[in-house]
Amino acid sequence: MKIGVLTAGGDCPGLNAVVRGVTKSALRRGWKVVGICDGFRGLVEGDFRGLDDTDVSGILVRGGTILGTSNTANPFSYALPPLGSPERPRDLSKLAFRNFRRLGLDALVAIGGDGTLTMANQLYKRGMPVIGVPKTIDNDLSATDVTFGFDSALAVATEAVDRVHTTAESHNRVMIVETMGRYAGWIALRAGLAGGGDIILLPEIPYKAEDIIKAVLERKRRGKKFSIIVVAEGAKPARGGMTVAKVVKGSTDPVRLGGVSYKIAELLDGRVGMETRVVILGHVQRGGQPTPFDRWLATGFGVKAAELVSKKMFGRMVSFRNYGFASVPLSAAVGKLRRVSPSAQEIRTAIGVGTSFGNSGVTG
Amino acid sequence: MKIGVLTAGGDCPGLNAVVRGVTKSALRRGWKVVGICDGFRGLVEGDFRGLDDTDVSGILVRGGTILGTSNTANPFSYALPPLGSPERPRDLSKLAFRNFRRLGLDALVAIGGDGTLTMANQLYKRGMPVIGVPKTIDNDLSATDVTFGFDSALAVATEAVDRVHTTAESHNRVMIVETMGRYAGWIALRAGLAGGGDIILLPEIPYKAEDIIKAVLERKRRGKKFSIIVVAEGAKPARGGMTVAKVVKGSTDPVRLGGVSYKIAELLDGRVGMETRVVILGHVQRGGQPTPFDRWLATGFGVKAAELVSKKMFGRMVSFRNYGFASVPLSAAVGKLRRVSPSAQEIRTAIGVGTSFGNSGVTG
Amino acid sequence: MKIGVLTAGGDCPGLNAVVRGVTKSALRRGWKVVGICDGFRGLVEGDFRGLDDTDVSGILVRGGTILGTSNTANPFSYALPPLGSPERPRDLSKLAFRNFRRLGLDALVAIGGDGTLTMANQLYKRGMPVIGVPKTIDNDLSATDVTFGFDSALAVATEAVDRVHTTAESHNRVMIVETMGRYAGWIALRAGLAGGGDIILLPEIPYKAEDIIKAVLERKRRGKKFSIIVVAEGAKPARGGMTVAKVVKGSTDPVRLGGVSYKIAELLDGRVGMETRVVILGHVQRGGQPTPFDRWLATGFGVKAAELVSKKMFGRMVSFRNYGFASVPLSAAVGKLRRVSPSAQEIRTAIGVGTSFGNSGVTG
Amino acid sequence: MKIGVLTAGGDCPGLNAVVRGVTKSALRRGWKVVGICDGFRGLVEGDFRGLDDTDVSGILVRGGTILGTSNTANPFSYALPPLGSPERPRDLSKLAFRNFRRLGLDALVAIGGDGTLTMANQLYKRGMPVIGVPKTIDNDLSATDVTFGFDSALAVATEAVDRVHTTAESHNRVMIVETMGRYAGWIALRAGLAGGGDIILLPEIPYKAEDIIKAVLERKRRGKKFSIIVVAEGAKPARGGMTVAKVVKGSTDPVRLGGVSYKIAELLDGRVGMETRVVILGHVQRGGQPTPFDRWLATGFGVKAAELVSKKMFGRMVSFRNYGFASVPLSAAVGKLRRVSPSAQEIRTAIGVGTSFGNSGVTG
Repeated sequence: MKIGVLTAGGDCPGLNAVVRGVTKSALRRGWKVVGICDGFRGLVEGDFRGLDDTDVSGILVRGGTILGTSNTANPFSYALPPLGSPERPRDLSKLAFRNFRRLGLDALVAIGGDGTLTMANQLYKRGMPVIGVPKTIDNDLSATDVTFGFDSALAVATEAVDRVHTTAESHNRVMIVETMGRYAGWIALRAGLAGGGDIILLPEIPYKAEDIIKAVLERKRRGKKFSIIVVAEGAKPARGGMTVAKVVKGSTDPVRLGGVSYKIAELLDGRVGMETRVVILGHVQRGGQPTPFDRWLATGFGVKAAELVSKKMFGRMVSFRNYGFASVPLSAAVGKLRRVSPSAQEIRTAIGVGTSFGNSGVTG
Repeated sequence: MKIGVLTAGGDCPGLNAVVRGVTKSALRRGWKVVGICDGFRGLVEGDFRGLDDTDVSGILVRGGTILGTSNTANPFSYALPPLGSPERPRDLSKLAFRNFRRLGLDALVAIGGDGTLTMANQLYKRGMPVIGVPKTIDNDLSATDVTFGFDSALAVATEAVDRVHTTAESHNRVMIVETMGRYAGWIALRAGLAGGGDIILLPEIPYKAEDIIKAVLERKRRGKKFSIIVVAEGAKPARGGMTVAKVVKGSTDPVRLGGVSYKIAELLDGRVGMETRVVILGHVQRGGQPTPFDRWLATGFGVKAAELVSKKMFGRMVSFRNYGFASVPLSAAVGKLRRVSPSAQEIRTAIGVGTSFGNSGVTG
Repeated sequence: MKIGVLTAGGDCPGLNAVVRGVTKSALRRGWKVVGICDGFRGLVEGDFRGLDDTDVSGILVRGGTILGTSNTANPFSYALPPLGSPERPRDLSKLAFRNFRRLGLDALVAIGGDGTLTMANQLYKRGMPVIGVPKTIDNDLSATDVTFGFDSALAVATEAVDRVHTTAESHNRVMIVETMGRYAGWIALRAGLAGGGDIILLPEIPYKAEDIIKAVLERKRRGKKFSIIVVAEGAKPARGGMTVAKVVKGSTDPVRLGGVSYKIAELLDGRVGMETRVVILGHVQRGGQPTPFDRWLATGFGVKAAELVSKKMFGRMVSFRNYGFASVPLSAAVGKLRRVSPSAQEIRTAIGVGTSFGNSGVTG
Repeated sequence: MKIGVLTAGGDCPGLNAVVRGVTKSALRRGWKVVGICDGFRGLVEGDFRGLDDTDVSGILVRGGTILGTSNTANPFSYALPPLGSPERPRDLSKLAFRNFRRLGLDALVAIGGDGTLTMANQLYKRGMPVIGVPKTIDNDLSATDVTFGFDSALAVATEAVDRVHTTAESHNRVMIVETMGRYAGWIALRAGLAGGGDIILLPEIPYKAEDIIKAVLERKRRGKKFSIIVVAEGAKPARGGMTVAKVVKGSTDPVRLGGVSYKIAELLDGRVGMETRVVILGHVQRGGQPTPFDRWLATGFGVKAAELVSKKMFGRMVSFRNYGFASVPLSAAVGKLRRVSPSAQEIRTAIGVGTSFGNSGVTG
């Protein structure tokens, strides 16, 4: 047996732990393992290298991916020329199949987000024996209870909330911390809860300027001279009454980094009698060492993927369900976002400890 | 409404987050909250204080418990005289009931481990409106998928495994790291997996000296000149063939700190051609700031406990199931240990990445 | 004896450790201690509270300042009306003296940056018995080898450089990390050295676009497909040949957060064949727990300040020299910036490990 | 030019940063670099490998040493046979010289502690062009103000003191934390100061049982129901009056790990009315990632060593003085321990915040 493994999409703590899990598990079975470089780019362009035990030694704790990754390479719509060229992308999936055969692969393990898994499913439907491993730092894939990288991102975001706390208190300020989360607000919600944020703004719950101001002033009235606002980059204002945003991934306008935070800061300006400062976390959330939980989860995903290969359960994706490792069909997994429901227990938890969601319609 | 809250048993990161969650949630409902000091000691001896919003501000991130705790106080077998006195402990549960009434309490939230929850259940059966919140840093309660404190302990243990790694490599040594886990080996297992431990010894899988030695030598043969052994304090040698230990909590001999590690070091001595060093983690695993996950989980437990009180669902324990907050009857929860099964997926994961359990009978 | 203590200027990890050191030391001598709120605002407006042992218990590890602080309050030019009002600030230093006497103070310990120390010196010259404790997170005061807060800021900045490293490698990107440092580049220089940054841009060494591009391309040529640029917020382009900036604090235009980083990103765009991403660290650098070094240094500063009071050595500032605690006259300390010299050993160190300063004139 | 580099003695965070600093600096000068394996063992036995830029890429942040190290190998007294053999060690320094010549080396950079530097000095006296780089995690070398590794050890020890704090408070216990420091108590002293330890026991200040008990009871009297004792492994009881220990390295009995802590616990037992728990930190203090300060210091040491080679300033040791990189003759550096003086400012700092040294003779 000979299997290929690739990582695609944005980097995420735990990718290397998956690669290590797949590789060690495969080598133990006597298989050969080929690492495909830079996601689907390597599969289309035939860029790869063998992986043995030495290659994956010590990578468990390292962020990023030793295989490299690409955010854009899609075998079915491949942009050959440099970015900005007028030439259209082309379907080069045949090259992907040709390279797969040329390498003598019996299976492909594709580690990536919703886009990657969609491509993986397309390849599977056309005959490639594929196993998917989900990767989304935003934890927003509905087919799995949790994904690796999320806990690490949460650690960074919560530490930032902790840090600005002391500045907010000392200077009587409103501090705004912006986390990742374009379509789903899990990082903002959990970092807000874990860090004791006073106001949490999510893509799923459109905020109202007046309700944010009311929450800050209400705190002031109770003697709390500062407020911490944790805001997901994809948070949006309500356009009327309380309507939960029904944004579908890919269909929305691009979110400008820091856009929403500066907008919130502006609308508070001169209306709450406190200075406001903004911190945009950005890329530090997705780099660096994975947490113990993420290393464990990612290792489990990797070993499970090799297990699925050995059972020839292709077209499936590894998943975490009921606190255990499981699998689901790729076709059932892709395109289904897991978003924060305004009526969820977790929202009730936040309301319970006095958190405002900047929308008077959300009352737990 | 007026509710009492107490924390009992060994301290654990997240206790304060539960206390804050219960209190904030109760105050929001217009209830009064009474903090009972040092676990059941305060309930028997009438030692308590009121809790308002200021008392629980800022405690989310702090380890330990602002209420104090006691490992030994049991209303049904209360040791009045100083330790070592010949006088027998007495049933002072009536004092507990009297203080409960005297304070005008409508409910008691008891946060603690299996022992505490057993007492809580006994009080409930005799008429006290009690809600339990599970606390076990060992993560060994079967009625909940996970408990707060465990993730924090894991962080400390994994960091230690990471740290000794570089010493092991530089000196070509065998490093033994001993974690908590008297009856269940979850901390050792997960820290071992997360830290890339080579050999993991658990209370659930009796080890054989020869198999540990074999694993170290096998690594040496493959050019790995060091080995990391992660061992739970309750790990035990096998007495014959592969028999999974069937230890019941409370029924075993006390485990001496460092006992098993030095025993392992001794049996390796002169047999693997490497020096061996031992690190006993001990109490650093249970103190200090909770991780973001533990703060979140503990806050959710606290708010859920208040919710159960408001619905008068007494005699129940808060629980985490299917990645959500739930509850189970106390009677169904107590006395049931969740231990590592040698045939579990998690063991297969470890075997998959080459981990030895010091027992040739365990093969994934 | 009765002493007052205040913290002024931007918050900084270690302020509380100084307050604790002064207070504990004073109480041990049998003195009374008064905490003055929000820096000089409290002294002018008569806002203060007594400090006893309980008040300073547990604050050693906490960021921020329990006394509150103010960035703007100056007794000699005090802005009474709200910001933006046409009314001019007034000299209210007499109010400061009146409150000092009214409180019955024998000495004032003023903890703050260059601005605060300048005011402290003015008060001293007019007869107030003042001791200064230096605070600058940028480590840019020439009268002391090092100040508290700097090591903590460095920890945050270095961790960020570590984190973006894995993203840079995985995506073959140029990552730009912007640190604090408006007039002196110590944080960027040390975080760059400690994190292995490839290019470091400082206010003291004006950068040339061509030299930055050359450095990135040179790395690419040697097979390093990514680059990390660590840039101080006050870094500036050279206007001609290699001229070290001679900026005096206060005399320059305000630096816009992220301004320089986005400028660098823009000038690389399309010229190095790699994507570029920017991370602005901002306020997370000045909040949160101080490092062990900062707790130690700040405690030493606080105890030393009380010692100077007991010896009536007023008009002096605590200082760290030759790895020991010392003092210097306030008049000799204020207004003297310690900046990075392009010919310093530290620059040679950086050049030695291959760092570029974006200026071909700097060669170590 | 061709230089050799070796690391000897116990491992220490920052060793790799020195190796990287030396190597990058040498390569930039067009020199060749040879890494000698396992300290002087490699020099005697001719075990080495070339070092190029790739070998030292990414090692800045890694603990341990990529070259390996040996605690025992001494060219002048070399133990050829296995440990425990009756054969005596021999002087094999001629082999060291022969290998030095055979490799065509122009200089040797020896990174190690007092023992290593003594051997380096002997080799230098017999004609080998040697540069020393000091390494002592205990920070106890008098010829340099500070050594790398110490700040990292301090970080681990202080975190442990922080962690046990919450347990001590919650359970009303005495917690004893034992740090490294056989002959000098710097780690215990600074971790005690940084972590707010109540009693600090050092090798330099012999403790009296009665004075420790008095300090704990005095705290109790003031309402502090717990105490933290930070004890260096080499702390010793006083034999009569207050006599500062005049221990010389090498001349004392070996210190048993945990020996002193359990002795302290025993003598408190039943005399302070509180339970006592012991935590022995051991090897976690010397492994893992170096702190930013240590990475910076070690890099500076490495580059400075290469600079000394280029200037042919042999027989010297790199040093840190007046917050800058300097050098001293090896002969002036070896054998001189820097110990804590009971009359030092740092002791006064500790006394100032209420710390007891378990010896009523020490009063600041």
